[in-house]
Parts: sequence; C-alpha cells; structure tokens
Amino acid sequence: MSEVGLPAVSERVRSLHARMNLDEKLAQLVGYWVDQGDDLVAPMAGEMATSTKYEDATVHGIGHLTRVYGTRPVDPVARAAWLWGEQRRLQEETRLGIPAIVHEECLTGLAAWKAATFPTPLAWGASFDPVLVEEMGRLIGESMRQLGIHQGLAPVLDVIRDPRWGRVDECIAEDPYVVGTIGTAYVRGLQDAGIHATLKHFVGYSASRAGRNHAPVHAGPRELADVLLPPFEMAVRDGGVRSVMNSYAEIDGVPVASSDELLTGVLRERWGFDGVVVSDYFAVAFLHTMHAVAEDLGAAAALALAAGIDIELPTGDAFAAPLADAVRDGRVEESLVDRAVLRVLAEKEELGLLDATFDEPPTEIDLDTPAHRDLAQRLAAESVVLLSNDGILPLELPANARIAMIGPNADSPEALMGCYSFVNHVLAHHPDVPLGLELPSLAGALRAELPDAAIDVVPGCAVEGDDASGIPEAVAAARAADVAIVVVGDRAGLFGRGTVGEGNDVDDLELPGLQRRLADEVVKTGVPTIVVVLSGRPYAIGWALSGASAPAAVLQAFFPGEAGGAGIAEILSGRTAPSGRLPVSLPRSAGAQPYSYLHPILGGPSEITSADSRPALPFGHGLTYTSFEHVHLTAPAESETDADFTVVVEVGNTGSRAGVDVVQLYARDVYASVTRPVAQLVGYARVPLEAGERAVVRFHVPAGRLAFTDRRGVRIVEPGDVELWVGPSCEERDTSATMRLTGPTHDVTASDGRTVAVAVETGVRA
Amino acid sequence: MSEVGLPAVSERVRSLHARMNLDEKLAQLVGYWVDQGDDLVAPMAGEMATSTKYEDATVHGIGHLTRVYGTRPVDPVARAAWLWGEQRRLQEETRLGIPAIVHEECLTGLAAWKAATFPTPLAWGASFDPVLVEEMGRLIGESMRQLGIHQGLAPVLDVIRDPRWGRVDECIAEDPYVVGTIGTAYVRGLQDAGIHATLKHFVGYSASRAGRNHAPVHAGPRELADVLLPPFEMAVRDGGVRSVMNSYAEIDGVPVASSDELLTGVLRERWGFDGVVVSDYFAVAFLHTMHAVAEDLGAAAALALAAGIDIELPTGDAFAAPLADAVRDGRVEESLVDRAVLRVLAEKEELGLLDATFDEPPTEIDLDTPAHRDLAQRLAAESVVLLSNDGILPLELPANARIAMIGPNADSPEALMGCYSFVNHVLAHHPDVPLGLELPSLAGALRAELPDAAIDVVPGCAVEGDDASGIPEAVAAARAADVAIVVVGDRAGLFGRGTVGEGNDVDDLELPGLQRRLADEVVKTGVPTIVVVLSGRPYAIGWALSGASAPAAVLQAFFPGEAGGAGIAEILSGRTAPSGRLPVSLPRSAGAQPYSYLHPILGGPSEITSADSRPALPFGHGLTYTSFEHVHLTAPAESETDADFTVVVEVGNTGSRAGVDVVQLYARDVYASVTRPVAQLVGYARVPLEAGERAVVRFHVPAGRLAFTDRRGVRIVEPGDVELWVGPSCEERDTSATMRLTGPTHDVTASDGRTVAVAVETGVRA
Repeated sequence: MSEVGLPAVSERVRSLHARMNLDEKLAQLVGYWVDQGDDLVAPMAGEMATSTKYEDATVHGIGHLTRVYGTRPVDPVARAAWLWGEQRRLQEETRLGIPAIVHEECLTGLAAWKAATFPTPLAWGASFDPVLVEEMGRLIGESMRQLGIHQGLAPVLDVIRDPRWGRVDECIAEDPYVVGTIGTAYVRGLQDAGIHATLKHFVGYSASRAGRNHAPVHAGPRELADVLLPPFEMAVRDGGVRSVMNSYAEIDGVPVASSDELLTGVLRERWGFDGVVVSDYFAVAFLHTMHAVAEDLGAAAALALAAGIDIELPTGDAFAAPLADAVRDGRVEESLVDRAVLRVLAEKEELGLLDATFDEPPTEIDLDTPAHRDLAQRLAAESVVLLSNDGILPLELPANARIAMIGPNADSPEALMGCYSFVNHVLAHHPDVPLGLELPSLAGALRAELPDAAIDVVPGCAVEGDDASGIPEAVAAARAADVAIVVVGDRAGLFGRGTVGEGNDVDDLELPGLQRRLADEVVKTGVPTIVVVLSGRPYAIGWALSGASAPAAVLQAFFPGEAGGAGIAEILSGRTAPSGRLPVSLPRSAGAQPYSYLHPILGGPSEITSADSRPALPFGHGLTYTSFEHVHLTAPAESETDADFTVVVEVGNTGSRAGVDVVQLYARDVYASVTRPVAQLVGYARVPLEAGERAVVRFHVPAGRLAFTDRRGVRIVEPGDVELWVGPSCEERDTSATMRLTGPTHDVTASDGRTVAVAVETGVRA
Repeated sequence: MSEVGLPAVSERVRSLHARMNLDEKLAQLVGYWVDQGDDLVAPMAGEMATSTKYEDATVHGIGHLTRVYGTRPVDPVARAAWLWGEQRRLQEETRLGIPAIVHEECLTGLAAWKAATFPTPLAWGASFDPVLVEEMGRLIGESMRQLGIHQGLAPVLDVIRDPRWGRVDECIAEDPYVVGTIGTAYVRGLQDAGIHATLKHFVGYSASRAGRNHAPVHAGPRELADVLLPPFEMAVRDGGVRSVMNSYAEIDGVPVASSDELLTGVLRERWGFDGVVVSDYFAVAFLHTMHAVAEDLGAAAALALAAGIDIELPTGDAFAAPLADAVRDGRVEESLVDRAVLRVLAEKEELGLLDATFDEPPTEIDLDTPAHRDLAQRLAAESVVLLSNDGILPLELPANARIAMIGPNADSPEALMGCYSFVNHVLAHHPDVPLGLELPSLAGALRAELPDAAIDVVPGCAVEGDDASGIPEAVAAARAADVAIVVVGDRAGLFGRGTVGEGNDVDDLELPGLQRRLADEVVKTGVPTIVVVLSGRPYAIGWALSGASAPAAVLQAFFPGEAGGAGIAEILSGRTAPSGRLPVSLPRSAGAQPYSYLHPILGGPSEITSADSRPALPFGHGLTYTSFEHVHLTAPAESETDADFTVVVEVGNTGSRAGVDVVQLYARDVYASVTRPVAQLVGYARVPLEAGERAVVRFHVPAGRLAFTDRRGVRIVEPGDVELWVGPSCEERDTSATMRLTGPTHDVTASDGRTVAVAVETGVRA
C-alpha cells in the first residue's frame, strides 16, 4: 500500500490527534442516530438499526449526532436544551472533550418540526433564480445555527437523467449548469450562515438504470465528466463547499463509496476539495450487503476509508467495531484512519466546536418567521411554469364567480411539500401530531386571493388507486361553475408510501391513479378548465397540451412548499405573471426514457428510428401573460479557446403587461472530436420588463463553458465553429450567430480553480 | 503520426500492391452498389445514393460488388451469368485485373429471390442448438458459393440489451455466451462452405439509448468488455472469422467507426484478428453527417481508415474521391491506405480470386432444396417456446374438430419471416413479384398437419392500426369452434414499414395495434384458446400468462422462417414436443427497460425501489409436454483460478412423454472486486430423453468463463466463492453447490487465444 498523504492541519488539531487512541479516533469517524426507530426514513433503516446504546457509542466521544431534530417531531426548544447538555457531557465526560457535529437534512428547509418548508429543488430550477435560492439557503442556515446544528445534508446536485426515478423532486434540473449555479447559490447561502453544506450524491445516483433507485449506472467516463460531475466541481471551486456525501450508486461496476478515483482523485486531487466526505446513510455497509464488493463489514470499511470516505453515517456499522478489528488485525493501515480523523478534527475546529462552551441554549425559537414565509412564497411564485394557455389565464372572473376546485391535490396541504419536507418525510409516521406550520392548500390560498369568488372543492379521486366513485360529483361541480381548476399530481413519500420521492420509482409516466381520467371528464363538460399539476416529477401530459382532451391552460408547479398555495394563487389571479421555465423536459412517455435535451444528433428524432424521442415540451419552455422577443444576438466572429467571449442580445417585452423573461443562451459545437449535444445551455438571466420595455443582456462566457472530455480523457476547449442562439426553449432559435473558436486546443483541467460561471449584465435600453 | 504497421502478406500480394497507383488502391477499398435505388433497404439509402456510374466507379477495379443478388428480385441464373461476365471484364479491362469480392446479406439465409429462408437469429437463440445453426450456416454458404458470392454480412453478435430496439430479431440472445456459441457456430458453418462471415455490429449497437436505432450508447468500459465484446472475441478466436463490420454506434461520445482503440486495439492487437474490417453501410460518411466528428467526407475517411476500417460499403462515398483528395493534400498518410489495400488483396488471394477464371457460370440453381427446407423446419420446431399451458397442448381433438384460426398472423406467410429475409427486406417493395418460395402460413401448415380438422381463418384485426370492425367475426368464429388459436405478433419491415425490424423501434411493448384486445375477446368467449405469438421481439404479455385474460396456452415463436408454419404445427399437434427456451427476458413493460437478467443485486427488485424490474418471464424459461428434474449437482470444493473445473448434474425425464431438456448451468460470484451479476449462464446442453430416462451431463468449464474486468481494466478470474446451479430458468435453482476458486488472481487477457467455450458431455445413465 502506498503511503497515505495526511492533510495539512493546525498545530492544535495535530496535537489533539496525537493524544488519541484507536477507539477515540474511530469514534470521531461515525455518527450516532439517537432517535432511530423502525420508521423508514432512510433506505433499509429498519433492518440496519443499530443495537449499540447511546451511552456505549459515545464513551470515547462521537463524530456526529444524526438528525437530532429531524427524526421525530420534537419541540425545538426542549430538544436544544437536551442537545446543549449532551455537548457539555461530551466535553466533560469523554477523555478528549470533543463535541459532536450535529447534522440534519435541510433540502427544502430544515427538516424539523415547525421549521419553514420552501419549494423543492426542482422548483428552484424552474425559477432560474440563484439569487433567491442563495437567500433561502441563508435563512435555512440561520435557523439551523440557532439550534446548534453544524452541517446540512443538502443540496442535491444530481443532474436529472430519468424522470422515472423517485428522487427527481430533490434535483434541480436536467442541465448541469443550472444545477451547478443554483446549487452553488444554495451552498453560499447556507455556509454564509455558518452551516456546512453537503453536496450529494457524489456522483451518478440520478443515472440509475431505468430510473430505479440504487440500480447500477451505465455510464462511461465522458458522460460522467461532462454531465454528472460539473455541478459538483462548481460547488467545490466556486462555492467552497465544506462537505461532500458519496452516492449509493455503482458506475459501470464500481460503487462510488469504494472509488478512490472519484472520492480522492477527482474531488481532492483535481478540484482541491479539503473538507470532509461523509457516507450516505448505510452506504459503507452496502458495499458488503448490496454491492457485494466486500466480504464483510470490516472489508467494506477498509474499502470506503481507503477510497476517501471520512465519516460513516448515520452510525458506525462498519467504521466502529469492524474497522477497529481490521486495524488491529493489520488489514487496514492506521494512517488511513488518521487521515480521516485529521479531516474531521479540522472541520470541528473550523466550526468553532473546539472552543464552544454550550452555556446558553436558545429559549425561544421561531423557525418559520414572516421572512421565511415571504421568501417561500416569492420562490414558489417564480417557479410556477405556465405550460399552455388559450387566454383563460390570468383569471378575469365576474364578481361572485363560482370556481370548482377539483382533484385530489386541490385542498391538500401535503401536496405542496416535497419528499424531504418534514411533513412528508417524518410527520407522515405521526398522524396525530399537528403539522406545526401554517400550510394552506391551494384551495385555501385561492380563497384568500379571490375573496369574492365562491369556491367549491371536490376531490373526484385520490392521487392513487382506481376508485372512480367520486368523479361524477366532480363533473357536476364543474358543470355548476364558471371555471374549473383541476389540481392533480403527486403525493411525496418514501419507499412505497406516496407516488414520488425516495424509493418511489415508476415504470409509467402517466399521472398516477385516475387523475388523467378525472381531468378528461371535467374538460369534456365544456366548462373552461385549468389543470394545475402539483408534482415531484414531470409527467407525460402531452394529452393535456393539445387535442380534444386539452384544458384551456396547464400550470406546472413542482412541490412549491408552505407558501406554494399562495404562490400559485397569485399567478392564477394575475397579480403576478408566471416566470418559471421547465428545468427538465416534459416526457413523451416512460418507454421513451432515458432522454435528455443534451443529446447529440442521433439522440434525437431521425429517419433512422421510428421511436420518437421528442419530449411533450422541451427544456426551458414556459409561457407568461405577456410576450418577449429576442433579437440582434451578437458574438465575436472569432475568439480564442482560452479566453472569455461576450454574447449580447436584446430582449423586448412586446406585450401589454409586465413580466419576467428568462433569457436562455444556447450553444452547439458544430464539429468536434467526440459527439456533442445539439444544444447546450451556456448562460441564463431573469430579466423583468415592463410592457414595451427592452433590455440588453451581456453574457461574459469563459470558453471553458464549451469544454468537453476528449478521447484521451482530458477536458478541452477545441477550435472550430460554435453556433450561439437565444430562444424561448432549447428547441427554438429566435436570434443566432456563429463564432469560431481559434488557437490551439486548450486543456481546461490544467487551469485549476478557474470558474466557468457566466457573468451576466442586464442593461435597460433607452 | 506514428508509423503504420503493415500486415504480413504473401510475396504475390506485396508485388501486386507495389504496382498500384493511388486510384487503383482506393478502388479496392470501396464497394459499388449496382442495383441501388430509392428503396430504403439501408439507413438513408435514398439520400446517400451515389451518382457515380458503374463504368466510372470500376475503371480502376473495385473492391466489392454490393448485393448483386439481394437488392432486387433477379433470376439467379441470369444474374450469375452477368456476374461471371463482370468479373471477367474486371480481369480483362482493368490494368491489374483483380476481380471483386461479392457480398450479400445472409442472416436468415441468403437474402435473394427464391433462396431458402431460415428462422431469425432470436429463434436460433431459443433453440440453444449450435449444432443445427452450424449446419444451417453451411447450407447458406453452399448456396452463396454456387452464385459466386464470397462474403456474407452475418451473423449479428449484438447482445440484446433493450427489446424496444427494432433489430432485436436479428440478435441471438440476451446472454453473451449464447450469442458467442451460436454465433460462432454460424460462422463455422458459413466459412466451411468457403464464404467469409462478417461479424456485426462491432460493437455496442444493441445498447443504444432507450432502444432507439443509432442512438448513443451510454456504457462504460467494463460493460463493453464483459457483456458486449465477448461474443465477438469467441467468433474471432474460436471461429476464425474472416471479416468484421463496425457498429454505427457511438459509445460514450466516440463513434466506433472512428475508434482505433476498438477496431485495431481490441480486435487486432488483443485478439489477433487478421481479416478485413468493412464499414456498415454509409457508416464512414455518417462520421461527418450524423456524428459530426468530421468536418467533411475526407476527414471522415481519414478517421475511419486510421481507426481500422479497411473497406467502405456499400459505395465509396468517403474512401473514393474525398480520401483521394486527402491523401494528395497530405492530410492522410498513404501508408494507411496501403495497410487496408494489403488486407483486401490478402483476402482476395485467400478467397482464390487472384486465380479465378470465371469460365462457367451455373446454369441451374436450386436455392431452396429439400435439405434446406428440412433444416429450416427442424430449427423452427426447436425454437418454439411454450410459455404457458394448462394442459390444452398438445391438441387432442375429436375427429372433425373445428379450429378457429384467428389473428392477423394466422394466415400470413410474411409473418413467419424476419426483417432481413428477402421477402420482407426487399420483396415488400415489389408487390407484383411472387414470393418465389413455398411459404405456407401457420393456418396452411396446420391444415396439412391436421387434415381431418375443419379450420376457419378470421384475421379479426390487422397487426397495426385501430380498426376493430373485424373483431366480432373473430369472436363468432371462436364461439363456433372447439378450440381457438389466436396468432398475433409482428410484421417485420424497415424504417417505419412494419412493427419490428431495422428502424422500427418502439416506446411501448404491448402487442401492436388491437391484438391484445382481440386475444382478450376471444379468451372471454370461454372457448379454449391458444395464443401463438409470431414476433421479432419479446412483448410485455404478462396479461396472457396469468389472470382473467390468460388463454389456456401461449406459444412464442420468433420469426421461424419458410417452414415455420410447419414447425409450429408439429408442436401444436404434439408430433414434436416443444424444446425452445427464452433467449431473452419477456419484458414487464417498456417503462421498465432497459433490463437484463445479468444484473447485480441492485439491478433487480429490492426494498429500495418501488419499480419492479422483474420480467414477465425469465431468461431460460420454456415448458414442454413432459417434465424434467435436475438433481445431484456436483462441483469440486476448490479449483484454481487458471484451471478448468467440471460440474456434473443429473437430469431426468419425470413425465410420460419424450422430450428435450435444455440443461442450464448458472453461476454467481458471491463477492468480487466489482459488482457481478446475480446469475450468469455458464454452459448449456440440449438433452433428449425418453419418458423416464435419465442422463448425466458434464460441463467442463474453463475458469475464464467467470472472468470479469477489474478496476484497472484487466480481465481477471478472482479467487473466492462461486455458487453454481442448474434450474429451468435463470431465476430458479433445482440443484446447487458452492465452489471456491483458489490461487492468485488470474489475468485472462494474457492467456491469448484461450477459448472459453464450455465442453459438454452427455451420458445416458444406466
């Protein structure tokens, strides 16, 4: 075995480490899940539940405390008091006195009782608004900081590769740059508040075969380097993220948890990451039980530790006793343990834990302030995507109009919440516990938005199942109304509870249950009908967009969070114009998957295949209540392969209302040494414009945005023609230019630390 | 550019080459398609049609003549006379006097008018009978030899990865070893008759994204090495194949036609292939037009030639004028041209073309002799898979029984024929030309098999479309009958004509058109119903196997060829017991794809995903009219990683009729350094047994059958436990043992030329 490189740490950390025995070292490398029970909030959590008692597990100290607030509904103040006491106990009763890192889930807000719940990441993607997402991250982080939490297990930077996967709602987009920019914004916000963000799931998880959770990833090194890795690179290099979590996935036979090529080679040696790598829950043990690349837990620990996993979460299934035995047997070099321990101690020092006193637990905590709610609503409103509209929206109703709100999600607060919201992730197991949040359903929010309207609510059917008995009542309600709003979609949950979320993968992309039939029957009444899809994945709803079954308008909202009802209601009423854009292709069918807009020529429709791959609606699509034009795109005729170039485009609001355009700059490398996508989003900008107003948008693009991995495995920018265009989606070109990249092939892996973020300036034109 | 290694050739070839100018060299590297028109019998054939006249194209000689017999219905004797004359003209009127290689398609038999048409390769796979396939190859080759053909563009060794792909009927199986053994048998048969076989499509074509033809392949190097490449390696090393055709595919961004790593590194340098690599039709030009990795045809030619494509087919789109320009400009080294020319000349010498005289064209040719027909029927009968049977089969009918033959494929001769049969590939464009073959439909064949039965034929519906008007007549016919036989499935064709075949990919695996509904309605009559699926791909017919819609029995026949009707009829009557086994999983749904039985733990069903991946029926499944038991499997407790081991199992016919069992030996490497499949077919044997008879089967297995590619990219056999079992499909274990592989990790790439074929001995037990 080659010599293990030890990280550079402070003198204080080095001397602390020098005092530690093996048990004390290993204790720092594991978590303990205080509240863990049989509720399935993590894969195999029931089966994997540890039998080690808390007191025994912490006798030598402990690396992490796992989901102290997030496993059951606990009163935050009372739990904080307990936690402060436990940290003091660790300081006082363990030999070295090192407090624990406390980590929690925080994807859609801190996943704890009574904490604000923001829109799901797919909605962040739809907003195309990193500024607001950064602000959200800061608010989340501030709440966590108040509670004595140090690390959050978010964001998810998996690039969407297959909508059949249940965890799509946790992902931001199908485009790596959107994932990278918005994910990095979240990291900045959270870390600005003093909380370490954790990138997950490094890497490949979203590309599992047929979208089945944990299934093998069939991907080559170029797809990995050019599609799946870039968001992580951005969050490391541009966002300075402090922690990374491994992916459960195996890629082409190698589980990432055992890949030093990825966890050490790419992450640390190539990108310079110097934080801590934590395992996804039970992922180290899975090397033995699920991947069968280790004959026992000790071998699993050895593989993971050598690869570069520093901390085993949620508990020490492999890094505690089995690893201790392996080190004592000489099967694992202790220097590998030292490497991880030094990293963890350095993180604790960086978090101030080595100097913390834990004197004053908070006595009053509001985790859902007006500031939280305001931001939640703004982000929700920005994320709603208007898919189609014959003019019915915005609603212009007579006084005392009658609205029929139909569908299982019309009056369901839970339908607004993502899988990693506390409401759906945990509270579903505690039916007697109140939500702990003000959480108006869409029907409730619309009543508040339109106080003069008479709003009838009829579910018609459930999200799942085949009980059609309620459909006639729904049809009757529609007939009696001036307008029908059919609210369909998903119920987020885990492992078979719900229709989307972790473990809820599908082989069919029709709306679950009878919801398509319900919408059909309402549309057939002839009453003007709006369909609102509240979902965690894009569904194959081509039938709703044209043809006999098409309603007058379709709105797509990806779980918009606690204020999502209000956010959608303000769009329906017209108080706010929709500005969301599809962050993922709206699929044609389950049988047409996988599909990505980032495909080369032959990944799209052609004469050579009868199977049409075209999505029902393309990435980037989204209407609003006004219209925009994009004109006069200019780019330099030539630019060097190692330089920045500037693309300028003019956007005009050509309608009669104010609105926000998402200006999308796309590129295509016409001929390259490997196949390249027919369209690639290069940059984007949200541009608010009054009616008739025009603006000039300047994109300053590092040539590295056009980099790809060549046949040698080197990421390069190649000379040659590049088409550049702006349009309302990846499939349409409103204005375009061709630019020639000149000079030698440029190796971008050599330009360490160089960001590829595109700077955007927007100037309103006189 | 590094120095190009020139192949070792005879003195005669060397001196012939030394006399050639550039035009003469390039002429040897291309084909000419004499009869080419607008009929779409190859991708983009219309658009790519050359404008070069035959006389101009052959003035310096020509490498190949393309599909002289196979492009249009031509009288074989007349066309042979023309061909002999053309070869003489090339000898006499070109400066160097080199005749052309004549190549044809020959996948299901020579694809020419009046030539015997055998079952499609998926049926070869279902037969698990390499002996019969080798015999078929020899008969095909003998017919070709008579006609002055030298090279056949078969077999297809693509391992099935997704049943949505239209070319699945051209593939043998989902298991690489079945593909390798049966494909190699075909190669041996064809080459024994003096015809050069051509392996296609090297490599990856079948793994295209979502099963769309020509779509990118997302696969890593291990999947390539362990699943997709092994059949090709077997046919090169064990079969001594003389030619290989590139795949159209790109793999992880690199088109195979431009991959010297594959076409030269793997094929020639690792495996020692010394024949000729031909391009798939238009594949060189596609590097420019479809993959966009070459800015023009000259650059495409340069890439392909450097990678290792020697001959461009069907015509010289890139290797003629564009390559000539590139060589003259200095963009391409002439030594690359020389390398290819020397290979082609060596092939011509080997084929005897340099000494041929072309004096005596054949004057009488029978391409469909009784020997052809007999073999076609035997292979067809062996390939029929009995999926389910409540006892209705074999038919035991009263005298003068009335049988309703229902369904669009009941009385359709074309429904028996694969996509690459002349009938469906070419003759479909010539509706006024007779089939040229005796080709009884299943209904016709059953009338011959059961002369006393009254057989009514009612199609009920077409294979495609939504015209339900014929269903009532079909239902009435069923009601009036003693038994109903519903014959459903595919119509093979190309590029949008038909439901399966080249370019006919699907995103839905229900039976096409209204056929499921037709079967449903017939079953509902209560009249005992047998469903026969005549198809080119496995369909999602779980509904037909259990539950209310399930008929009394289901037979699956993959396009069984000219005598397929008779082959199925003898199974129905009970004259022959079914002995086919599924060479491919019967899919659950299109949305559950891709799926392969060769999956690691997490590729199968688990608690971690709600999406059930289990197929409707597993690989290897097939019933018959008797029953078999497998007992007393023995294997050594230990065996060396570089040795052979012997597995012995006893099989008994426990029923009351004779039958043929396909004994299937499976293995699982319990723990390995990369993830390994939960089941892998190691060897198989067809064992005919009388009622009550027993046999002992010995499998002599080289440890290399358990090899896989490790993290370094080296194919190894690793020490550790291996489970071995025999069962009636990949999912069932009748008898099993665990063996420990011992000794050091064994590098099998170093053991050049070592075959991995499993020798099988079957001894009837006293």
